[in-house]
Amino acid sequence: MKHVVVIGGGTGTFTVLSALKKYPLHLSAIVSMADDGGSTGMLRDQYGVLPPGDVRRALVALSDSESILRELFSYRFKEGGLHDHNFGNLFLAALEKITGDFTLALREASIILNVNGEVVPVTLDDVRLYAELEDGKVLRGETQIDIPKSSTRMPIKKIWLQPEAKMNPSVKRVLHHADLIILGPGDIYTSVIPNLLVKGVSEAIRASKAKKVYIANMMTKFGETHGFSGKDFVEKIEEHLGKKVLDYAIFNNKKPADSVLKKYKKEQAELVSVEGLNLKNKEPKYILADLLDSGGLIRHSQKKLAKVILSLL
Amino acid sequence: MKHVVVIGGGTGTFTVLSALKKYPLHLSAIVSMADDGGSTGMLRDQYGVLPPGDVRRALVALSDSESILRELFSYRFKEGGLHDHNFGNLFLAALEKITGDFTLALREASIILNVNGEVVPVTLDDVRLYAELEDGKVLRGETQIDIPKSSTRMPIKKIWLQPEAKMNPSVKRVLHHADLIILGPGDIYTSVIPNLLVKGVSEAIRASKAKKVYIANMMTKFGETHGFSGKDFVEKIEEHLGKKVLDYAIFNNKKPADSVLKKYKKEQAELVSVEGLNLKNKEPKYILADLLDSGGLIRHSQKKLAKVILSLL
Repeated sequence: MKHVVVIGGGTGTFTVLSALKKYPLHLSAIVSMADDGGSTGMLRDQYGVLPPGDVRRALVALSDSESILRELFSYRFKEGGLHDHNFGNLFLAALEKITGDFTLALREASIILNVNGEVVPVTLDDVRLYAELEDGKVLRGETQIDIPKSSTRMPIKKIWLQPEAKMNPSVKRVLHHADLIILGPGDIYTSVIPNLLVKGVSEAIRASKAKKVYIANMMTKFGETHGFSGKDFVEKIEEHLGKKVLDYAIFNNKKPADSVLKKYKKEQAELVSVEGLNLKNKEPKYILADLLDSGGLIRHSQKKLAKVILSLL
Repeated sequence: MKHVVVIGGGTGTFTVLSALKKYPLHLSAIVSMADDGGSTGMLRDQYGVLPPGDVRRALVALSDSESILRELFSYRFKEGGLHDHNFGNLFLAALEKITGDFTLALREASIILNVNGEVVPVTLDDVRLYAELEDGKVLRGETQIDIPKSSTRMPIKKIWLQPEAKMNPSVKRVLHHADLIILGPGDIYTSVIPNLLVKGVSEAIRASKAKKVYIANMMTKFGETHGFSGKDFVEKIEEHLGKKVLDYAIFNNKKPADSVLKKYKKEQAELVSVEGLNLKNKEPKYILADLLDSGGLIRHSQKKLAKVILSLL
């Protein structure tokens, strides 16, 4: 069975894992541990636990449970004193408090959810994401970086974790056994690159014999990738990988309806341009395909994504 | 295999279930659904769910899980925004919110916890406990009744549920198949009798061919059973059973150390007197035994309790 490793966090990783789950593949997800917003942020601040959010999303994506438990792990309390808390986060946080061991909490959750595959936190250190903007301003915390407070915020110049994070030993193991490593899609500064900022991860990716793929976002995001072309996305990822090791970069080339794009424009999000890509390029080879989901949001279609990814195996 | 049904809620029921779990018995717990304090009360008030607390305690008592999950279900957040919330309660509440079905939530929790036996909420109606005191004052809610606000509070004259509660159909089934029915120990007005206030329960107990046992408390409790003798406990239970149907009433006759009793005196709690009991009485037959746990609290010893109960089967 082929081993596929997906690196990221957030909804992009959820989509790829959900897309591939239906096929006979051994799936692992390496997820960022830099989240500090919402329910995850409250739990980190109030209980000193590691961030459960991205791990929990990957667990649910890989869950083969047919019971209501998958839904339970994604359930969010909508009112009252537990407002905004996610049940799966509470599960991981309470177990970590009891055992003092995030890995053990993750293992129990994996058993309960009948997880087919493995979810690997990129680090087990308590770290925060920092960014320095072009104007020298320093932002602390993933949420500060993820959600710009002003519509004139400067682009990100540099991003790092603090304190320096040690790699979870399991990361090396799954990368070593991988046949295919997929980075993205997802916010590059707040979902994908935070994994590469952990010492040893980029090195382990480079050392792996797996094919290496980057799935680019469909839309730019203000505060992170405003004005980015397709090539800019690839270059930013390669910069953090430390070397030009990507075999493929996958882009959507289907234009969404103008009415849909208009909604995104309000948030200063634009369609990622693939026009300047040199299709004869070899490292990485650019793959352009219709990846657009048929829903009202500009999202990757799981089915279309799976088809392209499987063609690379 | 003999069927034993334990009726109550709270720590007394937890003790009996834990005591009997080690033996080859089919155990069921019928638990009160009148709790409205602490974590359970917050969840009822803020989310409109049924009270999870007593059900959760019985689940943990009957759990055969060797994993950390038993501990997780009893875990209480000690600080922050989740202060005082119990994880098992959150589990049941979130599942009830998703499914709108407390029974389904209970079933999932039973599977996860590998529950050996059955936990049966006495009713699935949303009810509150009311008490009228000797001075005519009416108290609403189990917590108001359970924890007296004044050291001069009058005794309870009458107790009832509002609105009138329908019996959970499973109650009739487990009582019908019972070989032994155990009431108590536990606060009679706030743990044991709330079960008997549900329409049809006392009738179903009377109709069962099982032997019927009441395990009396070791100590009186101010606000509920202040000044009660052993006989008073039995009479109050029989009054709510509607008939003299008890076969046995079990009492502790081991006096705790004076130093321990002194601590309880501060809360106006006294050792229950067994001196006035007519040991030739037949319905019920009084069983006096050393049931005292060796710890620093006046509690029933699981081992000693199990020995006496097993002798009745």
